[in-house]
Parts: sequence; C-alpha cells; structure tokens
Amino acid sequence: MLQNALLAVAITLLYFSRHYSPLLAAIGFCIIGYQVTDALIPRVSPSFVKIGLFGKDLSKPGRPVIPESIGAVSAMVYLFLLFFYIPFLFYKYLVVITSGGGHRDVSVMESTHDEYLFPHGKMSEYLSAVLCLQSIVILGMADDLFDLRWRHKFFLPAIAAIPLLVVYYVDFGVTYVLIPDIIRKWVDTPRTAVNLGGFYYLYMASMAIFCPNSINILAGVNGLEVGQSVVLCIISLINDSLYLTLGTEASKEAHRFSAILIIPFLGVALALWKWNKWPSKVFVGDTFCYFAGMIFSVVGILGHFSKTTLLLFIPQTFNFAYSSPQLFGLVPCPRHRMPRFNENDGLMYPSRADLIEHPPQKVMVPVLKILHALKLIDIETDIKKNMIISCTNMTLINLVLVWFGPMREDKLCNRILTIQLAVGLLAIFGRHVVGSLIYGHDNIQFL
Amino acid sequence: MLQNALLAVAITLLYFSRHYSPLLAAIGFCIIGYQVTDALIPRVSPSFVKIGLFGKDLSKPGRPVIPESIGAVSAMVYLFLLFFYIPFLFYKYLVVITSGGGHRDVSVMESTHDEYLFPHGKMSEYLSAVLCLQSIVILGMADDLFDLRWRHKFFLPAIAAIPLLVVYYVDFGVTYVLIPDIIRKWVDTPRTAVNLGGFYYLYMASMAIFCPNSINILAGVNGLEVGQSVVLCIISLINDSLYLTLGTEASKEAHRFSAILIIPFLGVALALWKWNKWPSKVFVGDTFCYFAGMIFSVVGILGHFSKTTLLLFIPQTFNFAYSSPQLFGLVPCPRHRMPRFNENDGLMYPSRADLIEHPPQKVMVPVLKILHALKLIDIETDIKKNMIISCTNMTLINLVLVWFGPMREDKLCNRILTIQLAVGLLAIFGRHVVGSLIYGHDNIQFL
Repeated sequence: MLQNALLAVAITLLYFSRHYSPLLAAIGFCIIGYQVTDALIPRVSPSFVKIGLFGKDLSKPGRPVIPESIGAVSAMVYLFLLFFYIPFLFYKYLVVITSGGGHRDVSVMESTHDEYLFPHGKMSEYLSAVLCLQSIVILGMADDLFDLRWRHKFFLPAIAAIPLLVVYYVDFGVTYVLIPDIIRKWVDTPRTAVNLGGFYYLYMASMAIFCPNSINILAGVNGLEVGQSVVLCIISLINDSLYLTLGTEASKEAHRFSAILIIPFLGVALALWKWNKWPSKVFVGDTFCYFAGMIFSVVGILGHFSKTTLLLFIPQTFNFAYSSPQLFGLVPCPRHRMPRFNENDGLMYPSRADLIEHPPQKVMVPVLKILHALKLIDIETDIKKNMIISCTNMTLINLVLVWFGPMREDKLCNRILTIQLAVGLLAIFGRHVVGSLIYGHDNIQFL
Repeated sequence: MLQNALLAVAITLLYFSRHYSPLLAAIGFCIIGYQVTDALIPRVSPSFVKIGLFGKDLSKPGRPVIPESIGAVSAMVYLFLLFFYIPFLFYKYLVVITSGGGHRDVSVMESTHDEYLFPHGKMSEYLSAVLCLQSIVILGMADDLFDLRWRHKFFLPAIAAIPLLVVYYVDFGVTYVLIPDIIRKWVDTPRTAVNLGGFYYLYMASMAIFCPNSINILAGVNGLEVGQSVVLCIISLINDSLYLTLGTEASKEAHRFSAILIIPFLGVALALWKWNKWPSKVFVGDTFCYFAGMIFSVVGILGHFSKTTLLLFIPQTFNFAYSSPQLFGLVPCPRHRMPRFNENDGLMYPSRADLIEHPPQKVMVPVLKILHALKLIDIETDIKKNMIISCTNMTLINLVLVWFGPMREDKLCNRILTIQLAVGLLAIFGRHVVGSLIYGHDNIQFL
C-alpha cells in the first residue's frame, strides 16, 4: 500500500520534472531506487551465499553467517537509474514540436539535430561519470571475489577514475585553481589563478583514491559504511541547496550536477542501510565502499569543488591520520582492529594492541603517553617496569568507545554518525565563513 | 625479444597516429591488447579456479578441469584500451598551439575550450558504446557467477543496451530507414525513407539481443566462440576497408568508427584464442560471447548498417534457425548438444537425440525425413516398426560432422570457421551487388 503510494509519487515527480527541474526526477529516481533495491536484496542474497560471498558477524553471539558484498546490488540499481535518468536530464533540450499526428519521436529527432542546442559537452561529462562509477563497481566486485591484496586494492579507484580523467582531459581540460587572497598579497601577484597542468590530474587521481579508501577504512560496526555514506549525502545536499538558492549561476550548475548524482544514490543507500544496520542481515562489501566514495570524488572533481568535498570527509581523514601509526607499522597493528564484542553484557569495548609481545617503535612511547594524556588513546601500563602493556587500536570507532565508554553496537554506530554529521555541518559553515576570508569572496551570496 | 619489438611498433603507431589517422592508434592498441591479455591470462587463471569458476572439458580424455569465464579478462583489457584510446581518437581537435615553454597542457586547454570545434556529439556516441559494452561485461559476469536461467540471460544484452539506446534517443534520435527502390516503385511513393519511430528502438534492442546470443549458441567446441569472433572481425574489417577506400564521406565515418572498435578487439580476442584453441587451457565463459556479440551490435547500430551486420551473422542465424525445432521443443532437446567425443579414436562424432524415449511432435516426423533426404540431418530408423530411433542434434557443429564425417576437435573448429569466412565474404560481395540492385544505388563507388 505505502509502496504503491510511493511509486505513484515517484512517477508523478518524473512526469512533472519535464516542466520544472531535473531535480524532481532525481527525487523520483531516489524513491524508485529505494524500492527496487529493497525488493532485490532479500531475493538475491541466497545466490551470493551460494557462490561463497558470505562473512561471519564477529560482534554477535554465535557469529552468524551473513551474505557479503550485497552493496553491489545497490550499485547496479543506481547505475541503471543513471541510465534511465538521461532523457529527464536533457529533456529541456528535446523541444517537442508536435507534428500533429502525435509522433513525438519525429519532432524530438528534428530538435536534437541542432548541434548548438543540445549540450553534448554536458552529456559527455555525465557519461564519463557513469563510466567511472561502473568501472569502480567492476573493480570492487573483482576485489570482493578475488580478495585482492591491500597494496593492490588501494589503487583500484585510481584505475576506475581513468575514464573520468581522460574525458576531463579531452573534453574540458581546465587545470587552473584559484589563488587565495592571502597568498596573492604575500607573493604580490596580480594573477588570480594558477595552472597546475599535469599535477591537477595527479591531484584528481588522489581525490579518486582518497574518498573510496577512507570510507572503506572507517568500517567494522554494523551499518557504519552505509550510515556514513548517508550522512555524507545529507551534508552534501545541504551544501548543494545553499548554492542552488543563494549561489552564482556557475556554481548553481555544478551543485545541480552534484545533487543529481547524490539524490538517487541516497535512495539505494537507504535501502541497503535498512538491511545492513544493526543487527545486520547483509554485509555491504568493498564494492559499496569504493562505489560510495567514488560518487563523492566524481561530484567534487566534475563540479570543481574538490576542496569542499574533502571538508565533508573530515571524520574519515581524521580516522586515516589517527590510524597511520598503526598502518605504517610504528605501533603494532593486529589483523582486525574492530572493537571487541563482549558476549556477557552484549556491549562493544575498544580492542587493544598487545605491546608486550610486539613493542612499538621507541619514538612512539612518549607519543602514546601524550595521546593518553590528551584522552586520544587508552594505554595500560605496568608501573613497576615502566612499560606500556597495551593500547587501544587507533581507529575513530575505538576512540569513541574510549570517550564514551562501552556501548551496544547500534548506539556506537549512531554516536559516530552523529559526530560525523555535526563535524560536517560545522565544516560547511566554516567553509563559507573562512572561504570569504581567505579568497576575499565566497561563491554564495548571503545577502 | 619479439614482444619488445611488437611493443615498440605499437608505441610508434600510437605516436604517428596523431599526424595521420586514429586507425594507426587502433593497430597500436590491438598489439598492446594482445600482449597484455596474453600476459594476464596465465596469471589470473588460478584465482578464477579458486573461486569456483572452472569447468570440465568433456571432449578430452579424463575430462580435465579448466578455468572458466577467462573471457572476462579480455573484456576488461579491451575496455581499458578504449579509455586510453580517447585522446588519440580526438587528437586532431586538441590543436596544439605551443605556448613556448613546452606547456602542452595549457595550449590543449585553450583549444578544447572552443565548444564548436570539439565534436562532443562524437564523444557521447563513443562513451555510450563503452558504457553498453561495460554493462554487458557486468551482466555477463553476473551470469557466469550466478548461472542465471536461460530465459533471464537471453534478455541480458537488451538491458546492457539501455545506455546505448538512451543516448541514441537523446543525442541523435534518427529513426529513419531507407526504402528499397523495388518497394518504392511497388507502392508508388516519392519518399526515400520511412520513419520507424519507437519500432526502431525495438529493432535496435533486438539487434542487441541477437548478436550476443547467436555467438553464445554456436559453441561447444574448443576455440569456436573466440574463433568465430575473430572471423567476424576479419570480415567486418574487409567490409570497412572497402568503405574507407571507396565509400562516400558519410559511410567512411561510420566504418572508421567500426574499425576503431573492432581492431583493438581483434587483439584481445587473438590472445584469448591462443589460450582457448584446441586443446583449451581456459574456457571463455558467457561474458566473452555476450561481449563479442555486443561489439558487433554496437558497431552496426551506431554506424547505421545493422542490416549489413546481420549479413555477417549468417552462419549464426542459420545455426539458430536450424536449432529452433529443438529449442522450441518440437524435437526433444538433450541438456548438451555438443558433439560426442570418442575416447578410442580421439575423434568427434555428431551427438544424437533419443527419439524412442522422447518422441518428437508428430508434425516433425516427415520434416525430419525430408531434412535427412536433403542431408541436413542424420536419422536412424527402425525399418520394421517404421520409426525414427534417433536424429543428430540440430546444431551447425553436428551438421558439419554429418557432412564431412567424424574428425578431431581442432579440425572441426577450423572447418566451421572456414565455412563462416567463406559465407561472410560471399555475403559482403552479395550485399554490394544486390544492394545496388534493390536500393538503386550503393554507398560504395566501384568505379
């Protein structure tokens, strides 16, 4: 009943989007995406288990076996939504000059023949985004299936970004970045922008690597991968609406494009979240993490607001920086760093790295003590021997447990998502205030 | 040594393609595609076996286990070649106005800014082709992994064709087909073309379904799937070169596009053939059959010469039509219809359908007898009871065995490929002679 009503709303939105804005169609596709994904997940999950795509949920009594890589379903639904979106996106250019007999095709054909009317450039941009997302789905599936090595999979997103970067190079090729006012005054230059040339492509490739991997690393609690993607969607959409209501014409276009890609994604992500949130009935797999991160990379790269995108990823960046002593071997890194589940009280506790058997690098001992004093880590010390016995693993998830004490898995996930949302909103606010200060202007007009 | 020499040739071709033709780059990518695919196949095959992608070769003593779905490797290499191809394809529009300091990026950027210079329409066309091919790879992999039902997988190519058809609709939208002169005189109309409207999309979707499935159905002998794709490439390229040397300007462009997609495919297909030909070290999987067929569909659809493409598929069409009594249940259809391997002499014999246990539809009895008289089938009859005991399975492969007698698997494959090549060449020849007759003109100028 509710489903039918929602579908009716979606179809109405698609219909009216022709006369108003492609964003209405995006909302329509968001609803359809939710319903289709929600319907598909229980139907295809058994097939995933059958071919070996399953995992054990270590934070539940009895460690139940759960289908893995189900995020691929959301990703596929999303990709097909993007295909069907194309006519709605470009509808305003398909001017219908009715030929009398109701032959809409004839008139559509006549109008699209005008080379200067139809924005082929926009179309290439859109198609290159879809290609990039489709590539990351293929590579993500390869990773989920073949369980690639960490040092290989880290670079997968850069490979998937190749179509995006190549089309960018051939079709647009803008490699200028604005120079902040402060720096302009400092080096005393009249130039407002600097051309990064080839380095800009390196920068974009790094963006493409960063977002997917940072989502993939902030994981280990039921629902966190999808939850953080949903929060990222919400913050992005708030930022986009700011621009769409108050922005300049050029920035409006970039943020319309952003909203167009993100709104349907929100639909498929919410459906996946329904199944993945605590207690998880499915796992999402690397495919989903890469895919979700790539959407934000693509939006940032094509919309030329990659610095703002990075602001949205502050919690993930913090998690990465905080993890780096363990990732780079300065502090021993156990195979799993997810929090420890206590079967007796059903709560999650911070997991710890054993520093007796595997002592950390000498240089890290005082650092660990300082971090402990700053409440950024919890260490156990043997006072007699003046030795650190163990420290909590350096992930944002464990840190939240250090701060707020042990809690149930769903509470933990929600706490992290709340922090992410708060930080994200502050970041956007800061970006527009500070942005005005360092660039001497902002591209949204508050007054 | 030879490998390095070939790579040097490839790089030289890529370099000079800038000054001459993107077709030189296609040959370069063909060589690179061959080498990369050939190097990857032995490296990734064990991983395929590990995750359950393997099959038994029923036509060998001992039925050895062989990695399955390796065609996905060729397909992925091909897709990445197509990405890297983009700058070479559009090089002539990236006019380099050297800025003095060797900053090529700067000048490239300046030139691509000109909206009217760069053929964005061509770019969308190309990207939609890549999207369609990438979609069929994903769906093909899903089929190889999950072993979809026949009635589902039959329609997969139509789903993969959605991006192609949508972009076609939005970006080009030409739904006219030429009316043959004969029909024009017959119905006495001055119109030279008729608008098929929506039916044209149905026609294109059928094309997309037909080519991939027809390759998938003509299989069952080592090397035949890839071999027939290679032969299709050769016939297509001969046809393309006819047009490129003798054709009108418009047809030249369509056939340049065709050659651009087919030449690199020839490279990855030849490398796969090296591993898949008798005695097979790998199986290609449905992914490859779909993928290979889709390339010819895409080329035919975007080049507007889908009727010619269908001519290239005469052997596959014959195989499909010939199979249809079994496919539609008029004659019983065993689970496998591949020829029977005789371990004693190592030769392949036509496999037979048992008509005693599962008698055919009454109406088919005289038909089978006529086919037998025409040497289009072999039947065994019980003269006393006037009953047909068995008939050879109705596939082109078995028919070749009926005609030429039992032979070794590699000889059988080569015989079929030779027939395919001969029929294809005749079809092209016929198309240009008969085409001139029924359309009153031909789009290549012999004189």
